[in-house]
Amino acid sequence: MGRIVLAENQYGKAEVRLVRVTRDTERHLIEDLSVTTQLRGDFEACHTLGDNEHVITTDTQKNTVYALAREHGVGAPETFLLTLARHFVGDFEWVTGGTFSAEQYGWERIADHDHAFLRTGRETRTASVEVDGDDEVVSAGLKDCTVLKSTDSEFHGFPRGRFTTLQETTDRILATSLTATWRYAASWVDYDATYAAVRDTLLSVFANHHSLALQQTIFEMGKAVLEQFDAITDISLSCPNKHHFLVDLEPFSLDNPGEVFFAADRPYGLIQATVRREP
Amino acid sequence: MGRIVLAENQYGKAEVRLVRVTRDTERHLIEDLSVTTQLRGDFEACHTLGDNEHVITTDTQKNTVYALAREHGVGAPETFLLTLARHFVGDFEWVTGGTFSAEQYGWERIADHDHAFLRTGRETRTASVEVDGDDEVVSAGLKDCTVLKSTDSEFHGFPRGRFTTLQETTDRILATSLTATWRYAASWVDYDATYAAVRDTLLSVFANHHSLALQQTIFEMGKAVLEQFDAITDISLSCPNKHHFLVDLEPFSLDNPGEVFFAADRPYGLIQATVRREP
Amino acid sequence: MGRIVLAENQYGKAEVRLVRVTRDTERHLIEDLSVTTQLRGDFEACHTLGDNEHVITTDTQKNTVYALAREHGVGAPETFLLTLARHFVGDFEWVTGGTFSAEQYGWERIADHDHAFLRTGRETRTASVEVDGDDEVVSAGLKDCTVLKSTDSEFHGFPRGRFTTLQETTDRILATSLTATWRYAASWVDYDATYAAVRDTLLSVFANHHSLALQQTIFEMGKAVLEQFDAITDISLSCPNKHHFLVDLEPFSLDNPGEVFFAADRPYGLIQATVRREP
Amino acid sequence: MGRIVLAENQYGKAEVRLVRVTRDTERHLIEDLSVTTQLRGDFEACHTLGDNEHVITTDTQKNTVYALAREHGVGAPETFLLTLARHFVGDFEWVTGGTFSAEQYGWERIADHDHAFLRTGRETRTASVEVDGDDEVVSAGLKDCTVLKSTDSEFHGFPRGRFTTLQETTDRILATSLTATWRYAASWVDYDATYAAVRDTLLSVFANHHSLALQQTIFEMGKAVLEQFDAITDISLSCPNKHHFLVDLEPFSLDNPGEVFFAADRPYGLIQATVRREP
Repeated sequence: MGRIVLAENQYGKAEVRLVRVTRDTERHLIEDLSVTTQLRGDFEACHTLGDNEHVITTDTQKNTVYALAREHGVGAPETFLLTLARHFVGDFEWVTGGTFSAEQYGWERIADHDHAFLRTGRETRTASVEVDGDDEVVSAGLKDCTVLKSTDSEFHGFPRGRFTTLQETTDRILATSLTATWRYAASWVDYDATYAAVRDTLLSVFANHHSLALQQTIFEMGKAVLEQFDAITDISLSCPNKHHFLVDLEPFSLDNPGEVFFAADRPYGLIQATVRREP
Repeated sequence: MGRIVLAENQYGKAEVRLVRVTRDTERHLIEDLSVTTQLRGDFEACHTLGDNEHVITTDTQKNTVYALAREHGVGAPETFLLTLARHFVGDFEWVTGGTFSAEQYGWERIADHDHAFLRTGRETRTASVEVDGDDEVVSAGLKDCTVLKSTDSEFHGFPRGRFTTLQETTDRILATSLTATWRYAASWVDYDATYAAVRDTLLSVFANHHSLALQQTIFEMGKAVLEQFDAITDISLSCPNKHHFLVDLEPFSLDNPGEVFFAADRPYGLIQATVRREP
Repeated sequence: MGRIVLAENQYGKAEVRLVRVTRDTERHLIEDLSVTTQLRGDFEACHTLGDNEHVITTDTQKNTVYALAREHGVGAPETFLLTLARHFVGDFEWVTGGTFSAEQYGWERIADHDHAFLRTGRETRTASVEVDGDDEVVSAGLKDCTVLKSTDSEFHGFPRGRFTTLQETTDRILATSLTATWRYAASWVDYDATYAAVRDTLLSVFANHHSLALQQTIFEMGKAVLEQFDAITDISLSCPNKHHFLVDLEPFSLDNPGEVFFAADRPYGLIQATVRREP
Repeated sequence: MGRIVLAENQYGKAEVRLVRVTRDTERHLIEDLSVTTQLRGDFEACHTLGDNEHVITTDTQKNTVYALAREHGVGAPETFLLTLARHFVGDFEWVTGGTFSAEQYGWERIADHDHAFLRTGRETRTASVEVDGDDEVVSAGLKDCTVLKSTDSEFHGFPRGRFTTLQETTDRILATSLTATWRYAASWVDYDATYAAVRDTLLSVFANHHSLALQQTIFEMGKAVLEQFDAITDISLSCPNKHHFLVDLEPFSLDNPGEVFFAADRPYGLIQATVRREP
């Protein structure tokens, strides 16, 4: 049956909640992140013998997040994660790689105030740095970006079998909570500007594309991002189809011409696709 | 020991998810609510005998929400709840009162698009109508309104006892997730305009008031609302103190002049107060 | 319009997560609570002037929870909350009352192990002590107690109006997530034993009562508790009707004699009642 | 920059809530699952052209879950998922694979009642079937299995660097919420019996192993499973280190010999490892 061995493994500190205030001037800046570090390398003795000689404790990893935020600032989450990654993979010879990821929460000023903020609550920005030896791959993304179009969405032409009851429609609500992740090829990218521009592209295609299927909308969103941003090699999108069912009001002698909907929770369609460049 | 009897009771349908699209013109409107109905009255036979002769089923209550949304539109949630309340309390003689409440979720247009929307994710607007016989009380509010000020907040002068370890501070982060509910005295109010104005007042006082305690900030917010809006009789505020702890970086030979914070989850302070007019 | 004044107010520390290990012998005990303290009294100056002279900080309240757990142990949550309540209301003359509440999470031993435990995940036990001057009211309860009966539940005889579409049934699934709170009259109660016995009574009535309406089941549960436990003055029950809809399999040429159900999330019926003794 | 193409993609219905009652005798059985189907194959035209000729709608997938539950019963979730998988991959030539997964929720009888049940709320059982052409891989697992040992856990011998402040300990609380997934090699397995036995093995090792690091405990749990179950090729474990911090009671002139702990939420250690057989 073969010897039993340790295979893939990683460890670190998850969801380090870091809020950094930049107060060089009276007009404060605020950065709000949840940072997760995951180290890979030679940690076999810890697993098989309980020998912790190589274990940079997760408590130390947490301390490092806060200390490096003080020493280097935060800036784009991708940049901060690169700083973290290079610290861990560079300073400890037995650490050969890892995943360093972050969520960033948005805040806006209250009436343009210098130091009072309102959490926007729109989408959450995500970022990650994947290190394997000398390779560094930087990814960015967003999640919990909930969008809806009240028309310009059709769904028909699908096969009908024994278990098909769905009616075809040429006009439905299309709604989803978009999760997207894209990878950067280039070694230098203006991460903040690119994030904002990719987000705008995704929203714009969702709004303006006439949809024949959520799959088609997703592909068009991904394609538009790759067409506009040379620095991006591929993009993965995951979209729940947040069903809005037209309520049957006939029993009450009322029509319902696309006006009153029930927003369902579960089950939901789940559509996932990656769009990439051919090499 | 006394006879065992039925005391307070109510029942209804909770969290009816209603999305209404108004499509009279090419520029669609979208309204997104979660509606809960709770009826009170003579329901004793149902409880004690299982006699359902008086039970307007919760399924019927759900149907009614959708049907009235088609017949009357939605508009301000307070107005829609009044329509619902009067239907149930008016049409069934054994229904003598109830609580009709709603949450409303915000959407904004994607780049001013006619029919594509992005969920704002900021605060949730709340509303309720409380009916007892001929009395109707309309309340409005908001929740999950997360705000933070990075300075202009002090906390000192508190008593020190055996169990006190907290240090005094003249400069801290103050953050909370505001829940507020206010009651209307007047029989006619422009609910949408008043909601927006009260929200602005709450945010403005939070931003501009120099805080010596979260209690003081809360009282000032409530007082400002009552001073500006004659139609409001009282306002209740509930505010978790979302602690942001300054990270001790001294072990790493770093100072931390109000820059790097740990945002804690639990436990949290919880401050609640009602501000009202003296009769 | 009347002077604007502070009305009801309270403050404290919420969700203090306390785990206590009793290790007097090799067979450890574990107690796992979330404790919330809320003080009331003369806190006007803090609200209106930012004067914190009376403010026992929420940080101090948290410290007190841990220190008293060390000094007095925990035991029944009701007992621990009484200790906390008397400390705060007794030691500070301007504190005239408060609410002291707890959730307790269940653990069971792994294969009867001395110091290894598995969280049961069944219901959460709740307790609270309400103090107003010299009055102390002790309440106990449970929540997230999810139960289901697959038959012995009917629902018919309800009125049919314009908005009624629900079919009558003589056999349905009845499921709910029970929340119950009961108040103790007596000054001395064996809280742990009574909790276990009340819980058993609630479950037993749910299981064995032939239900004609969830309202009836709730009333029977409450009545049985009052009949068996003289120390309890009243009990409040809140029960979502967790709908299980029989799936229509006719389009697939299949019958469905009460076998295949869709468990819905929202909306849900919500039934609430208090049962008490007549004075 | 290369042509832009569709890469990996899949779609289906997520979280179909299926409750099946078996009522052949007076002693009912209840099965409670959340089922997710994800199909892969030739769906390019849908993505690039909006041509739905190949799209077995997610609504049809949902219907199929319910219909097959009626036709074939449920049984072990792995068996039900195999039935689903073979239906979709077998009946539609353009479907070449997919992932079919389920969560199963536990219920126990209330006092051995024939048809009244209490949700156990302990761990959730998971299962999945991965199909790629003729290959079928069956996996099983569990999640949300929260365990704690109050002693027999040490942590020391780790390197100390600039950012290390953690103290070494020879006695700490070790707690985690175990997620495990294991793959079956064999074509026939008694899935229910094996699930129960693997679960017992995991809990037993957690309880009885003297831990020098959570990594070591995880490896021992995985190794024990592989040693006992020939049908399992590998097992992956993901364990948050749910930190329980000893509260410093010295400021209150109290000792704390491993008795009073603060259970923290975030951040948490996150330890992940796969244990497998060498080929």
